[in-house]
Amino acid sequence: MAKPYVIGIDMGGTNTAFGIVDARGNVIASSSIKTGKHANLEDYINELYDEITRIVVANDAEGKINGIGIGAPNANYFTGIIEDGVNLPWPTPIPLADLISKKFGIPCLITNDANAAAIGEMTYGAARGFKDFIMITLGTGVGSGIVVNGQMVYGHDGFAGELGHVIMKRNNGRMCGCGRTGCLEAYCSATGVARTAREFLEIRSDDSLLRNYDIEAITSKDVYDCAVAGDKLAQDIFDYTGNILGEALADFMTFSSPEAFVIFGGLTKSGEYIMRPIRESFEKNVMPVFKGKAKILVSELKEADAAVLGASALGWEIKEG
Amino acid sequence: MAKPYVIGIDMGGTNTAFGIVDARGNVIASSSIKTGKHANLEDYINELYDEITRIVVANDAEGKINGIGIGAPNANYFTGIIEDGVNLPWPTPIPLADLISKKFGIPCLITNDANAAAIGEMTYGAARGFKDFIMITLGTGVGSGIVVNGQMVYGHDGFAGELGHVIMKRNNGRMCGCGRTGCLEAYCSATGVARTAREFLEIRSDDSLLRNYDIEAITSKDVYDCAVAGDKLAQDIFDYTGNILGEALADFMTFSSPEAFVIFGGLTKSGEYIMRPIRESFEKNVMPVFKGKAKILVSELKEADAAVLGASALGWEIKEG
Repeated sequence: MAKPYVIGIDMGGTNTAFGIVDARGNVIASSSIKTGKHANLEDYINELYDEITRIVVANDAEGKINGIGIGAPNANYFTGIIEDGVNLPWPTPIPLADLISKKFGIPCLITNDANAAAIGEMTYGAARGFKDFIMITLGTGVGSGIVVNGQMVYGHDGFAGELGHVIMKRNNGRMCGCGRTGCLEAYCSATGVARTAREFLEIRSDDSLLRNYDIEAITSKDVYDCAVAGDKLAQDIFDYTGNILGEALADFMTFSSPEAFVIFGGLTKSGEYIMRPIRESFEKNVMPVFKGKAKILVSELKEADAAVLGASALGWEIKEG
Repeated sequence: MAKPYVIGIDMGGTNTAFGIVDARGNVIASSSIKTGKHANLEDYINELYDEITRIVVANDAEGKINGIGIGAPNANYFTGIIEDGVNLPWPTPIPLADLISKKFGIPCLITNDANAAAIGEMTYGAARGFKDFIMITLGTGVGSGIVVNGQMVYGHDGFAGELGHVIMKRNNGRMCGCGRTGCLEAYCSATGVARTAREFLEIRSDDSLLRNYDIEAITSKDVYDCAVAGDKLAQDIFDYTGNILGEALADFMTFSSPEAFVIFGGLTKSGEYIMRPIRESFEKNVMPVFKGKAKILVSELKEADAAVLGASALGWEIKEG
């Protein structure tokens, strides 16, 4: 039988958040440390160990941890390694799963943030009971986690589920952080929304509350505030964004025919301003055989806890040896 | 233990081909009947039963059939039903799996043609040992069968794997048989190649051997013959087609990160004229993290046997009750 708790660790470039989670998704205790404080990886892992041990002891959870799950950028589920190209203070590759499981004496699995979110949603959130769904995370970038037949899709190399990098504009597309142009992420991330705002303000001449902002510093939150205030240009920005995302989801439908798409991340705070055009565009663009078949849902994980919850859910995949 | 043989049935609008297949993919015996001969579904099933029984008896295979697999248009693996919108002489939906298994007294599974091809390739062909690959069939249409973690991707409704209908041209795209515009199928099927030929001949003014053909009757085979003869316009048609397919495969890579794409169907007879631009375009367009990682292979199933072999492979999924 599985032990009653798991530990979830959400490792970001700035902060590392962690918590003890029970089988129902209650975060029993949580805390965080600064990722960037230690020039040396060993010191970081020592502080993480000390802090986690402190909350484990304080909550009488010693010997009751089934496993440790970590969500981290470019983390490879198969190898347990954080690969190159991430914003962390230590040289990569980092054999993180191995280092953590040895230090703690508890089995550890790692995956990237978007996959962790999908596992969290399936274990505790809006996707409970779904065997086929796709998680789309709309943050600084666009991430995805794909579940088929009840299993995460990792692909042959552990890097599947990069749906933020399908090409939506084959001609004259925006530069993307991946080095190519026209990717979904360049349009439908929070950053993409801000880029669209700057583009619209430059191209269009109609009045807009957004013209009162410093154009270079506009955020998706500003666009939301203006949309709520009835600003047409701001609302058009969400329509434009949602339309592209709906076109993308319509294409994703032909792949795995999920019963739901679960949308997660800061942009979902814009509520129906973004969700309505996504749904409308999806239904308009999807192949006839799929019309009306897929739900488009907002994540049910509390954003403050979501990353830790998602990572923690990996801890349930570990079976007693 | 599984019995030593399976029966594969490839049900098309014109012909129904079938065969007895062993575990190594040898077709022990095969035959076919005319699908359209019977106005009545029951008569069709009776003739199929008689003909299959004849070759089973002739090959001493009575009591040795593990299962029957059928590849048919719009066949749903989960329900065993052939859904609407197919070119068959009987009213749909048709509960085919149930009708066949009752008539033969042998368990029967059905799926669509492209999924059957993928299962066949995994069981007997170029994808043996692959846990993550994508089969692309280039025929009258573009079909696909997706394998993730060693399992076929059917989706929540049995209709996953319609990659011929991702949108490759969002503006001014060609009409597709699905009722939308710009689908991969409208460009990269054999029919799509013929359409490209007509377009190129109309738009361009350079000499071409293709100008000696009846423009309305040009086929992808004609384009191949001219390409082999050194015709630049014909070769450009394959470059154009392969380039779009390579762009599409690059997008598919972000989904399931397969270790290989296996290309099947009439167009692959054009060899390197079509395969070279597919590979070049894939490597040029794929996300950096995936560069050099996926093989692009031609099917190893003999085309004459492939459909029957693919369908037959479903017969091995049946476990003894």
